[in-house]
Amino acid sequence: MIKAIFEHRSIRKYKETAIDENLLEEILEAGIRASNTGNMQVYSIIVTKDKDIREKLWEQHFKQNMVKQAPVILTFCADFNRFNKWCEYRNAKPGYDNFLSFFTASVDAVIAAQNVALQAEEAGLGICYLGTVNYTADKIIDILELPKGVVPVTTLVLGYPDENPPLSPRLPARAVIHREKYSDFTEAEINEIYKETENSDFTKQLIKENQTENLAQIFTQKRYTEKNNVHFSELLLNVLKKQGFLN
Amino acid sequence: MIKAIFEHRSIRKYKETAIDENLLEEILEAGIRASNTGNMQVYSIIVTKDKDIREKLWEQHFKQNMVKQAPVILTFCADFNRFNKWCEYRNAKPGYDNFLSFFTASVDAVIAAQNVALQAEEAGLGICYLGTVNYTADKIIDILELPKGVVPVTTLVLGYPDENPPLSPRLPARAVIHREKYSDFTEAEINEIYKETENSDFTKQLIKENQTENLAQIFTQKRYTEKNNVHFSELLLNVLKKQGFLN
Repeated sequence: MIKAIFEHRSIRKYKETAIDENLLEEILEAGIRASNTGNMQVYSIIVTKDKDIREKLWEQHFKQNMVKQAPVILTFCADFNRFNKWCEYRNAKPGYDNFLSFFTASVDAVIAAQNVALQAEEAGLGICYLGTVNYTADKIIDILELPKGVVPVTTLVLGYPDENPPLSPRLPARAVIHREKYSDFTEAEINEIYKETENSDFTKQLIKENQTENLAQIFTQKRYTEKNNVHFSELLLNVLKKQGFLN
Repeated sequence: MIKAIFEHRSIRKYKETAIDENLLEEILEAGIRASNTGNMQVYSIIVTKDKDIREKLWEQHFKQNMVKQAPVILTFCADFNRFNKWCEYRNAKPGYDNFLSFFTASVDAVIAAQNVALQAEEAGLGICYLGTVNYTADKIIDILELPKGVVPVTTLVLGYPDENPPLSPRLPARAVIHREKYSDFTEAEINEIYKETENSDFTKQLIKENQTENLAQIFTQKRYTEKNNVHFSELLLNVLKKQGFLN
């Protein structure tokens, strides 16, 4: 069993301790070894240590403290820029300015990111994925000077943990695993799947703090609202267009 | 170092040997432990062993033999269906029928897939990612009976290897890793990065077989053509619309 998988916790508090450069290179190499489409390696990893640039990234990641604390921020990008340039210098006309190309490059970028995350955790580092990169992709493109053909897909915070949180609870396997084909859920099954989560003291406290009727409303009314989702969807689609992936 | 990461090879020939159910469950549990957005777990894993259903999937995966040979096919899906149902039964109005929701759920599905892939490899199994799932998503939705709110994102073939291929070569790290910000490539740098790949005997043989001028043209003219990319992009965007993610 891979320990880093079964003992994974997202770390949100970091020590300032720098990461040794040799260790960092080994961790990044784990990303480079990842499965990818046609061995085109159409992704890139931006390694940001510089304090000023990290401060700019911190603003775009909704000012989450960990982005300032941790010594390294990794931005994983879908990247056809290098591949397109190579094709053009070889008298080969690239046809990768479309949604499929963006999506397959994104899948590859995430596979690489998870290799990096696990190898980092194996080495005693902590990680946290930042979904905020999808909300402020336009600004992150400016900060990291990403050219056309490059879109940030996911971000990892990387550093030595300054907290030791418990494992996060997960829904029972039957909520996620379907046998042979998809088996849709009845109301009774939904109730049963969410029962443990809904009845936990943690959830009850959360509902009190958020002043909602139940846990689901915390998601729909506070954390991931329709209004924000619609706004950020439009922004992200505009980014794909601007970076040349919606032709 | 996580051995499965640094010794990964995609396996394209499999023995018929079945995978023990306890082992399979442990491997799937690796997926469930994965990092995910807001702990919503908006992904699902369809585990297909049935020979008839695998044959139908095989047709959609461009009739690649391994899909018939390997005992298990795993289809990882972006899945807001369960979460939406839960919200609706709780008087909470879900606002997850948009592109951002699809994309964050896709990222989560891929992180889960890579955990599964590595834990499988750690246990001595072989894996291969199938990008074809993005090309024939409409048909795979029908075969696996995926409801609205569910889109297949990536597929893993899983089984005992019947081949032992060498490690795939990768571009040098400087092709993929950028320090602080993105540093774009000059023609000389592109030449330098691709030199080893282009000069290998393997590449020379490939060019001969494909009757192209160079390696880049094999990609643009044979493997990933503009015509196909445009066609499959339209198909994939239609699938997102039909499954309720482009509102």
